[in-house]
Amino acid sequence: MKVQVTQENLNRALGAVARVANTRNALPILANVLVKTVDNRLCLSATNLDIAISYFTGAKVETEGSITVPARLMQDFVGSLPGGVINLKLEENKLHVNTDQYKSTINGIAADDFPTLPAIEDGKTWTLPAADFKKALQQVLFAASSDESRPVLTGVYLHTEGGRLYMAATDSYRLAEKDLGANSHEISLLIPASAMQDLLRILADDGEITVTHNDQQALFKVGDVELTTRLVEGKYPPYRKLIPSDFATEISLKKADFINVTKVSSLFARESAGSVTLEVLADGGEDGTGALSIRSIASQLGENTAVATGPAQGSGSITLNSRYLLDALGALSGDEVIFGFNGKLEPTLLRDPKAPDYAHIVMPLKS
Amino acid sequence: MKVQVTQENLNRALGAVARVANTRNALPILANVLVKTVDNRLCLSATNLDIAISYFTGAKVETEGSITVPARLMQDFVGSLPGGVINLKLEENKLHVNTDQYKSTINGIAADDFPTLPAIEDGKTWTLPAADFKKALQQVLFAASSDESRPVLTGVYLHTEGGRLYMAATDSYRLAEKDLGANSHEISLLIPASAMQDLLRILADDGEITVTHNDQQALFKVGDVELTTRLVEGKYPPYRKLIPSDFATEISLKKADFINVTKVSSLFARESAGSVTLEVLADGGEDGTGALSIRSIASQLGENTAVATGPAQGSGSITLNSRYLLDALGALSGDEVIFGFNGKLEPTLLRDPKAPDYAHIVMPLKS
Repeated sequence: MKVQVTQENLNRALGAVARVANTRNALPILANVLVKTVDNRLCLSATNLDIAISYFTGAKVETEGSITVPARLMQDFVGSLPGGVINLKLEENKLHVNTDQYKSTINGIAADDFPTLPAIEDGKTWTLPAADFKKALQQVLFAASSDESRPVLTGVYLHTEGGRLYMAATDSYRLAEKDLGANSHEISLLIPASAMQDLLRILADDGEITVTHNDQQALFKVGDVELTTRLVEGKYPPYRKLIPSDFATEISLKKADFINVTKVSSLFARESAGSVTLEVLADGGEDGTGALSIRSIASQLGENTAVATGPAQGSGSITLNSRYLLDALGALSGDEVIFGFNGKLEPTLLRDPKAPDYAHIVMPLKS
Repeated sequence: MKVQVTQENLNRALGAVARVANTRNALPILANVLVKTVDNRLCLSATNLDIAISYFTGAKVETEGSITVPARLMQDFVGSLPGGVINLKLEENKLHVNTDQYKSTINGIAADDFPTLPAIEDGKTWTLPAADFKKALQQVLFAASSDESRPVLTGVYLHTEGGRLYMAATDSYRLAEKDLGANSHEISLLIPASAMQDLLRILADDGEITVTHNDQQALFKVGDVELTTRLVEGKYPPYRKLIPSDFATEISLKKADFINVTKVSSLFARESAGSVTLEVLADGGEDGTGALSIRSIASQLGENTAVATGPAQGSGSITLNSRYLLDALGALSGDEVIFGFNGKLEPTLLRDPKAPDYAHIVMPLKS
């Protein structure tokens, strides 16, 4: 292999793939990134056996070849180099990485030993605007569970129902769902949240994302990047019937106000695991004025009550985890929030009145 | 106590003192900040028994009083409040902290129990421009040791010699010294580096710093802040004779170049505890051109050689810890660096040719 590539291109490619490589794995080659020539481009790949990611970048290929090199060293090193041309030259298993000022030799492992995920056979393929998929991930992904004892909840559920595509995630304490619009395919994919984290980092705001999948794997193509992931096995809970549509109590607030009062209250809720009690007071008239007061459960350190005002219907109170509330408010896109709930043990709903395609449920705490 | 104070003033005061309070101490009151009225101002104080810090801020005092409240909660809470007036009202040991929107009660501990450091009696007092003291701390403080087994090296040494005031710190692997100019007092103060860290955070770029000290303690006054610290006991090593003045090998480099080549080389030196070998090649003429090449000791991962050019006198090579080299380069103020050394085991010196008031020694590694 003898290749010329710009520092900018190589650095971007390493930035996209190197995170997937992992030095803590038992197989040393999984800490490496595969560098190989493909036609007149350079392809960099990394895998942890569950996820594989490849980035194609323009290069001047003099002679073909491939090698794997330590991902972290390669990324730190290329990231520290000044912009301009980098010469890559492979001699046996040593990759020489040279510029005018820097001469380095990086000890590699032969590319033949690098594991690959099987190709997807008999797959379906469909596309979406990349910006829509990115926004959906930003609003949904964080609600997935990190608790490996219930594997299905560690996935992001991408599925069609009634001709529409939905993305959902839940850890059983809160649930986020995004409506991704009409889709004529029959889709039911449970994708590991960790793979979606990696995808989110490389998704751009323009272009398309192409999804190809069968029962075991899914492949996401975005521009010059390909991410392949194994799917999570198991059946996702039938969550849609949990989303409430009628509310005994409802208040409309400026999102910034709601965030501020929740943040301040959460400071006093540290000893009670973030528990805060929200009380909505409505004056009883149609579209009447009302107020939300958030009270932190009294603790050893003290207590706090904070108030925000907005139109409300029906008075009532409910106890929530302030961290989940802040996560939900952070995921809503508009300036206004509608917060509704029923009984003390029933799910609460947060939504943006101008964006009906996103719903966020937070389950109450016993109070 | 009944006081009105702006969120801005109270937040600034808490920011200056709250760090010194520590929840990990056996004495619960040391996690608290003392809030007390002093004439028509509010004074906030915190202490860890070694260091005490007080901040005076303007307030409208209706009735006098004092209380201690949990520092972290108070700081986080006040920091989250919107700008404007905050009402403080003490009822028994509960401090009510109210604004229009927020009503909080913080449980305190009586101020009588708050420990104070003894006043400094029979002390000397002198002043310096705060900006000079701040710059000196930025260039010297990081060289102090964090190893408690040699307590004197955990201090910053402020002392006069030949009518000049010097600030020095060393961990025995590197040494930094700043000349603070003529001073007619006889000074020999060994100040805990941790106290100087706290002082550095509150030092402004204008005004003066007033230092008052006796054999046990030192008091630093800067604007509205007072920091008192116990001194470190023991005799500081006679370091000045270690600073070399003649060099067998010397090279002048652009500081940015020197930093870049050192950073890149350090990536390949991780397995050898940061060890890099510097070689200066001079062409032999007066003010002749020369080059510095930095080579990372070959490791399992690979090796690197990086080159920077500049006028040099005398060829030679030496092995250093790249982290210490980067620290030293980061502390030098100008665009140029002169790097000089003699034998393989003798101290090397880094200095800015335009700023002779700062010297930085790095001891070589055995190679």
